[in-house]
Amino acid sequence: MGVNHFRRDGRDTKFVLFEHLGVERLLKYEKFQDFSVEDLGMIVEEALKVGREVLGPGLQDGDRIGCSYADGVVTTPDSWKDCWKVLTENGWPAAGQSPEFGGQGLPVVVSGLVNEIFNSANMAVMSYPGLCIGAGHLIETFGTDGDKALFVEGMYTGRWGGTMCLTENDAGSDVGALRTKAVPDPQAGDPRVYKIEGTKRFITCGEHDLTENIIHLVLARIEGGPAGTKGISLFIVPKIWVNEDGSLGQPNDVFCTGIEHKMGIHGSSTCSLNFGEKGQCRGILLGEPHSGMAKMFQMMNGARIGCGIQSTGIATSAYDTARAYAKERIQGAPLANRHGAAVPIIQHEDVRRMLMNLKSGTEAMRALLAFLLFNEDVASHDPDPEVRQVASGRVELLTPLVKAYNTDLGYQLTRDAIQVLGGSGYCSDFPVEQNARDIKILSIWEGTNYIQALDLVGRKLPMAGGKIFQGVLAELIGLAKANAQDADFAADFGLLEKATKVVGDFAMRFTGYFKEGRISLVPMYATRFLDCFAEVILAKLMLEQGLVARARLAGVDPGSADGVFYRGKIASAKFFCRNILTNVFGRYQALLQEDLSALEIPEEAF
Amino acid sequence: MGVNHFRRDGRDTKFVLFEHLGVERLLKYEKFQDFSVEDLGMIVEEALKVGREVLGPGLQDGDRIGCSYADGVVTTPDSWKDCWKVLTENGWPAAGQSPEFGGQGLPVVVSGLVNEIFNSANMAVMSYPGLCIGAGHLIETFGTDGDKALFVEGMYTGRWGGTMCLTENDAGSDVGALRTKAVPDPQAGDPRVYKIEGTKRFITCGEHDLTENIIHLVLARIEGGPAGTKGISLFIVPKIWVNEDGSLGQPNDVFCTGIEHKMGIHGSSTCSLNFGEKGQCRGILLGEPHSGMAKMFQMMNGARIGCGIQSTGIATSAYDTARAYAKERIQGAPLANRHGAAVPIIQHEDVRRMLMNLKSGTEAMRALLAFLLFNEDVASHDPDPEVRQVASGRVELLTPLVKAYNTDLGYQLTRDAIQVLGGSGYCSDFPVEQNARDIKILSIWEGTNYIQALDLVGRKLPMAGGKIFQGVLAELIGLAKANAQDADFAADFGLLEKATKVVGDFAMRFTGYFKEGRISLVPMYATRFLDCFAEVILAKLMLEQGLVARARLAGVDPGSADGVFYRGKIASAKFFCRNILTNVFGRYQALLQEDLSALEIPEEAF
Repeated sequence: MGVNHFRRDGRDTKFVLFEHLGVERLLKYEKFQDFSVEDLGMIVEEALKVGREVLGPGLQDGDRIGCSYADGVVTTPDSWKDCWKVLTENGWPAAGQSPEFGGQGLPVVVSGLVNEIFNSANMAVMSYPGLCIGAGHLIETFGTDGDKALFVEGMYTGRWGGTMCLTENDAGSDVGALRTKAVPDPQAGDPRVYKIEGTKRFITCGEHDLTENIIHLVLARIEGGPAGTKGISLFIVPKIWVNEDGSLGQPNDVFCTGIEHKMGIHGSSTCSLNFGEKGQCRGILLGEPHSGMAKMFQMMNGARIGCGIQSTGIATSAYDTARAYAKERIQGAPLANRHGAAVPIIQHEDVRRMLMNLKSGTEAMRALLAFLLFNEDVASHDPDPEVRQVASGRVELLTPLVKAYNTDLGYQLTRDAIQVLGGSGYCSDFPVEQNARDIKILSIWEGTNYIQALDLVGRKLPMAGGKIFQGVLAELIGLAKANAQDADFAADFGLLEKATKVVGDFAMRFTGYFKEGRISLVPMYATRFLDCFAEVILAKLMLEQGLVARARLAGVDPGSADGVFYRGKIASAKFFCRNILTNVFGRYQALLQEDLSALEIPEEAF
Repeated sequence: MGVNHFRRDGRDTKFVLFEHLGVERLLKYEKFQDFSVEDLGMIVEEALKVGREVLGPGLQDGDRIGCSYADGVVTTPDSWKDCWKVLTENGWPAAGQSPEFGGQGLPVVVSGLVNEIFNSANMAVMSYPGLCIGAGHLIETFGTDGDKALFVEGMYTGRWGGTMCLTENDAGSDVGALRTKAVPDPQAGDPRVYKIEGTKRFITCGEHDLTENIIHLVLARIEGGPAGTKGISLFIVPKIWVNEDGSLGQPNDVFCTGIEHKMGIHGSSTCSLNFGEKGQCRGILLGEPHSGMAKMFQMMNGARIGCGIQSTGIATSAYDTARAYAKERIQGAPLANRHGAAVPIIQHEDVRRMLMNLKSGTEAMRALLAFLLFNEDVASHDPDPEVRQVASGRVELLTPLVKAYNTDLGYQLTRDAIQVLGGSGYCSDFPVEQNARDIKILSIWEGTNYIQALDLVGRKLPMAGGKIFQGVLAELIGLAKANAQDADFAADFGLLEKATKVVGDFAMRFTGYFKEGRISLVPMYATRFLDCFAEVILAKLMLEQGLVARARLAGVDPGSADGVFYRGKIASAKFFCRNILTNVFGRYQALLQEDLSALEIPEEAF
């Protein structure tokens, strides 16, 4: 087994839950009334223990042993069977799911942050339960009572795996181009049962040896259905047929033809699957015909938030390795005392700067993630419909940000972590280079980051006539103005106000481009707009955290563990505003050029 | 053998040499008078052929087979023996070296750009000749006639390998901390022969099976010598002793104890070497005692420029793969015609934007590299001492830029290349993910990119009382003002002027920080200053190229191959200024904050 480098602590997670967001507000909701704040703190501690003792030790196995394929069978590393066992026996995968089907019923902000800790330890192994829960939740939401009884508990408790089968060779970002087809199966005696035929590619966890069965959710077109995404239906396609009494029946003509060799997440199988190559594959229609795309989007949205969870986890792990290394590694003297003795490199100014990038960057990612998940809990459970609606709008608005910004920033941060370790960071003894390889997938899957930017600009900004977006900006401006004279953060709130106005102008220009038929300018700047919008939101959250930390600091010994944490948090807030938020102004200068050279250039010039 | 993805063409290389820089000016120098412009064009074509037929096919072998280690012996992939054979039989490694010792005597701007093409095809295999030539050149420069006769030709012609042995376990960036020691060997009968004892780590190409012998250049401290870098001497330490008649003698007690497992460049052996573990290792002192550090810097400077060559090559290869893929892959409709038919993804706006990033970014990297190398030729060979001095100052000033900026930008560009390919980019069938892994080492070795930034700020800006730096800025401002009303590039020259002033102010603030004892602010912003300075230089070079291209375009059919190339070049120049140069303004906003939060935070808060 590989070396275990997992060394997360739970302090920032607890700060976010209990000091910043005040998760106790959620515990007033009927659904969560059986939980206490203490319970939630213990759950975080337990999760850290699982990371430390079970998932972390399997990280390097995943990378070095990885998955192997032979004759349709995919084998995962031995140590991953233990990971699966411990996770499922303790109900971790379905921590945020309904107890009716074996879940723990936690607020999703708690289960999400727990999941972030697990992903910090070993993201690739977590892809198996992650997809399984998403697929199970889709059946719970849209299935008949029979479907639910037959599948959901098995998936939530980890007896079975689950997948989402969208991509085909010629249908990646363009899902509507898919060719997998479904034909009613009159012999089945059930009008919901269809014969499925087609080939799917890039199916994460599409085949493996962790569970006795895998429940695939397959997008296919019912023969004669409309073209494009409007004719797509969703089918439950078990790898092994499940009998009405819940026992396993015959294999269902689903065959894995191979797995991909990848830059990272070697332990997460990426499969090509043939459905019905012998004409014997049966699937159960989930919901109405031709309604598959909308349903799949429920799972997709969850998976997009999942990318934010995964990237925050991996980047934090890279930070943890970098800071531990920087405290131990003695090398040379800092610039300000360059003829002095050799010191731990954490005292070198540039190393410190990179560590601050990692610290404030990962904290900001976590703040966004938690804020979004908290709103999801409010949106699902608050008794006041107006409160629910506001929260729900925020979840929709922020989902593309947490998916795209966190994954791109995360990749950059792993670069800094490698750099802190120098030559050792490039070598595989330490996991930072693996972190960089693992995290890279996240900007691609579940809709590329550009697709997120288009979703933000095309769908999310116009929601409710633009009011949700405008409301958020107004809130930021209000906060910035209210704190413009703050003793510690005046400069930062000043930057926040200035940057928020830039974001507002950016969005107004986009509206203009649509109206004026200059639509091509939008995709030229959409990803940069997303980054700018994300950075003002993150800056606001970090400044809120800074204010909370300052207030708390007043009540503790500044040299105590809490005191040090709060001082670090104040520094994180400042650093984020002054070093990351400021990128907004460079991107804005680019926008002002309204440059179309990328489109005006002849195609053959590439 | 792996799939060959090498598909470079030589158009931009030739444009830089013959249309932008006017390499024919160099051919007037006595040393180059035997070459014609046609010769140089043919050499570029021949290099492309070697890349296509020999080096490119070995790229994936290097990654997948890599180097293996057993009992002190390092084995490279079989196909790499062919690479070595073809390279050395045709005199490629020493193309820019002196004919007296088997070199081809080409201008270094030509040999450097040829080398860039080779690195595009297979950077890891090129690390073997790269280090060997650098080490040989050091012996040529500082060795006695006897040393030169004994070693240089063998190293230039590839009969032997060569290395640079600096790093030890506790002496990485802090070279002065090294512990390898040298003791005079009275039995040798030659006062220049010492016994060497010590352990070196991270020695690139330190052991391999491509050559019958390896000539190590080893930094060691002569017993009793001064502490730190002032007491370091340089020794020629052959793996197998070379007799006075040039024949091979006994093995020289140099033992490879292992190789590193790394993120990339798996085929380039990264070795731990024990010198003198049996007390039998002999080394020949190169030059005076305690003068090793200064000598090593000659090789180091070459290696830093080498990093610029390597990164430009790899990033261009990533661009080549991405553009070819984008022309073939059909998927969905662009935003501006979103209900239209599926098109090759090169017609999707965001893909096009990323390809422009790759195109203009790699062209700008090449422009900087070529400009620096051209100045190196002028500095070495121009008859006018004043001209030589100006050129030499530029080489020194630009070396940290080509090392740090090109390698960091290159890493970012490989990210875009992966993104263009989507899920396929994350898989290993295409080489873009390998490009990202291979290129990452370049920001670390040969002095981390932060060390480059300090070199720029601490040593290069103050050269000649700051006049060299000021002269470059004045030239940029002059060019920008002269073209402020340009019909095509007015906006771009405007940005250049504004950005150059920002760079000037940035530098002035640094001077202030040194004077005011606020030195800690310098390392907080040094890497960002380097990026800003690099971007104004690159923008200037790209605009020069844009002007040349426009003038040439007037004389050709715009639809011809040349016409398309020139139109593409004009777009590259605009895109660079409007989308990359604009980052200067974001970084400048950060500088204005004069943020020290990274240093003020308590160390324990990390």
